[in-house]
Amino acid sequence: MDRDSKKRIYKAHIIYTKEKNRFEVLENAYVAVDADGRVAGVSSEPALLDDGNTEVVDFGDCLLIPAMNDLHVHASQYRNQGVAMDLELLPWLQNYTFPEEMKYADMDYAERMYRRFVHDLWRVGTMRSCVFATIHTESTRVLMHLFREAGMGALVGKVGMNSNCPEGLSESVEKMMQGYEALIEEFNKPDALVRPIVTPRFIPSCTPEMLRACGELAAKYQLPVQSHLSENKDEIALVQSLEPGSSCYGDAYNHYGLFGQTPTVMAHCVFTEGEELALMKRNGVMVAHCPTSNLNVTTGIAPIRQFFEEGLRVGLGSDISGGHDLSIFRVMVYAIQMSKLHYQRNRERRFLALSEAFWMATKSAGSFFGRVGSFEPGYEFDALVINDSDLNHDNYSLLERLERYIYLGDDRQIEKRFCRGMEISEP
Amino acid sequence: MDRDSKKRIYKAHIIYTKEKNRFEVLENAYVAVDADGRVAGVSSEPALLDDGNTEVVDFGDCLLIPAMNDLHVHASQYRNQGVAMDLELLPWLQNYTFPEEMKYADMDYAERMYRRFVHDLWRVGTMRSCVFATIHTESTRVLMHLFREAGMGALVGKVGMNSNCPEGLSESVEKMMQGYEALIEEFNKPDALVRPIVTPRFIPSCTPEMLRACGELAAKYQLPVQSHLSENKDEIALVQSLEPGSSCYGDAYNHYGLFGQTPTVMAHCVFTEGEELALMKRNGVMVAHCPTSNLNVTTGIAPIRQFFEEGLRVGLGSDISGGHDLSIFRVMVYAIQMSKLHYQRNRERRFLALSEAFWMATKSAGSFFGRVGSFEPGYEFDALVINDSDLNHDNYSLLERLERYIYLGDDRQIEKRFCRGMEISEP
Repeated sequence: MDRDSKKRIYKAHIIYTKEKNRFEVLENAYVAVDADGRVAGVSSEPALLDDGNTEVVDFGDCLLIPAMNDLHVHASQYRNQGVAMDLELLPWLQNYTFPEEMKYADMDYAERMYRRFVHDLWRVGTMRSCVFATIHTESTRVLMHLFREAGMGALVGKVGMNSNCPEGLSESVEKMMQGYEALIEEFNKPDALVRPIVTPRFIPSCTPEMLRACGELAAKYQLPVQSHLSENKDEIALVQSLEPGSSCYGDAYNHYGLFGQTPTVMAHCVFTEGEELALMKRNGVMVAHCPTSNLNVTTGIAPIRQFFEEGLRVGLGSDISGGHDLSIFRVMVYAIQMSKLHYQRNRERRFLALSEAFWMATKSAGSFFGRVGSFEPGYEFDALVINDSDLNHDNYSLLERLERYIYLGDDRQIEKRFCRGMEISEP
Repeated sequence: MDRDSKKRIYKAHIIYTKEKNRFEVLENAYVAVDADGRVAGVSSEPALLDDGNTEVVDFGDCLLIPAMNDLHVHASQYRNQGVAMDLELLPWLQNYTFPEEMKYADMDYAERMYRRFVHDLWRVGTMRSCVFATIHTESTRVLMHLFREAGMGALVGKVGMNSNCPEGLSESVEKMMQGYEALIEEFNKPDALVRPIVTPRFIPSCTPEMLRACGELAAKYQLPVQSHLSENKDEIALVQSLEPGSSCYGDAYNHYGLFGQTPTVMAHCVFTEGEELALMKRNGVMVAHCPTSNLNVTTGIAPIRQFFEEGLRVGLGSDISGGHDLSIFRVMVYAIQMSKLHYQRNRERRFLALSEAFWMATKSAGSFFGRVGSFEPGYEFDALVINDSDLNHDNYSLLERLERYIYLGDDRQIEKRFCRGMEISEP
């Protein structure tokens, strides 16, 4: 995965979203990528990007779009993807999720599954992700190495939990800290593609001491934070009883320095409103919207249009294995469809446009990883080359081709993947 | 596609649904198919099926399941699949659907598109379908020939419409009748896999004379009927104004002999309740539930659990291009997910189990085509051989493998397809 310090220019039909309300569409255009993997510029004229000495790599009639970012995915639930979808949250956790996560004490099992997981992320074109592993430091380390070897970006969370969970998934605060320190020592380098992220499972799985320790870790090493928020009403009531001093679920995280004190992403936010919404906005906490999971686990539909109106930052998450589909393209489709259900109830709030779903998956979610998710100058070149020739059989416009790819396509049409300027080969 | 008059026995893991509440699961079992293409029996012991002289075709570790049935799909909207999903019903009809359907006056265009459409149905494992063509007799005839050549079952509807539509999509009652008579003459043979189905587009597209003529055609030739019903509230109000003598939308069809006088399937039924529901039940009218379309076109969610409780017959439809996905497996997933949204509002009505979605797609929908959709003795052997080895990497149970295939799989795992006992090769 050595960088050969060369500028590159790629030619294709380039589509991306600078802002959420419209696509930038450049037919037969060029993108120049500097030796550091960042976009130098996009233009319809190669001469504007170069002195003429850089070879142009021509992707012909393909679409070139930013790669996908997944803001919420449980690597350790990969084996359970598409299984037990008939169950609701609690029996699903007790009978499928927790027993599965315990297996990650076994390094052989962990490596076998994590290898497939990273491969599958590659397959569906997700180049950056926010990942839950398990409490196990050693297998989390394996997962981080696999991402690093692949050249794909990831914020990987060793999970903090020591309450309301089976014994095999509980870890003392002290062991949690030791494990994190080891991962931080090895992986927390400036500009690294793969870094640790502080990951208390959620308030009910953590004692106050565990939450406090997580907050201290995040502050001390300036690490980002991820967790779950306001996914269902029973959970919200439980948090209220566990943290009676907090004004809302989010405020409970806030008390422990886990709600925007460092960059924070919270999955679900189905019932986020009022004070919690205001606090998220004030603290810049990002929403990982997981519509497939919310449907499968029968929780509800997060009000994304309202979040946009309030100025919240929102990206998309596959949430395997609550969600069943690892493809963020597929999650985009569900995000649009779920917003249409809100729209049916309140026609004042327009459903999400395709550009908005695309923007959530690219530039908006990408912002959690740095300058990622767009082809504006200075952005890291994370990109997919889409060869939709098998879908494209009747003079569609470029945007129609993109829409068809999002709605109908799959990994078969992804011809090349780039992360931070490097072409990523099959891991 | 000649039948060689041989009995056959296939070995695989056999899964099907006799009734909606549970799967029949036979590990390493055998199905015997008689020379006429019908199931002779299913057993764990081949000796129970045969005198020992029939060669057993062994599909190894594959799953063998009934093939998919699509109860509602517009072949003539195939080009628009996955396009213009940002639009609501009326602009979508005016700007995309009607202009597209007009192209089917052009036989070259029709043949090119219909060929791809039939190929795609084959690809996703749909062996029987209820299809809307257009008003054009000649291109409808081409579509029927393509199905016949492929060996796949289809009820194909030349569309009746002469009101509230662009001139190029309007046909006189007389021409409609002539066109139908020609198609009936050619295709309406006893036991034919491909037959005509009477297809008034929907009440607002047809004058009373057109509707009356459609009802007469159905009665005279004992043809089945398909149309749209209670998809959205504006449409229901419009029908009420057009047919003030009818007690409900369904009753308007009923007045013209188009509501169960011959076997009838109605797409959508999102708002079907009360008198309409009772009339459907009384007349045995089948529901084509199209959850992807209902989401995309922002109409609502049909109350399937309630339909089950009332004893209505329900199958699934892809409704391309209101729906975006031709795979009935994918439509099953949406049917379950949409039922979970109902369940959130009313916990008394349990969401659909996987077996119920599967049953809708196979035995229930199949009943519209004869004895189709199950492996019980006497059923036509419509089947898919699923090789999920690339999805099956951790000791899943057979039902977990099926669930994973339904949620995660695609055409790549469909290794063989059978319709009425014949293996169907790529058309």
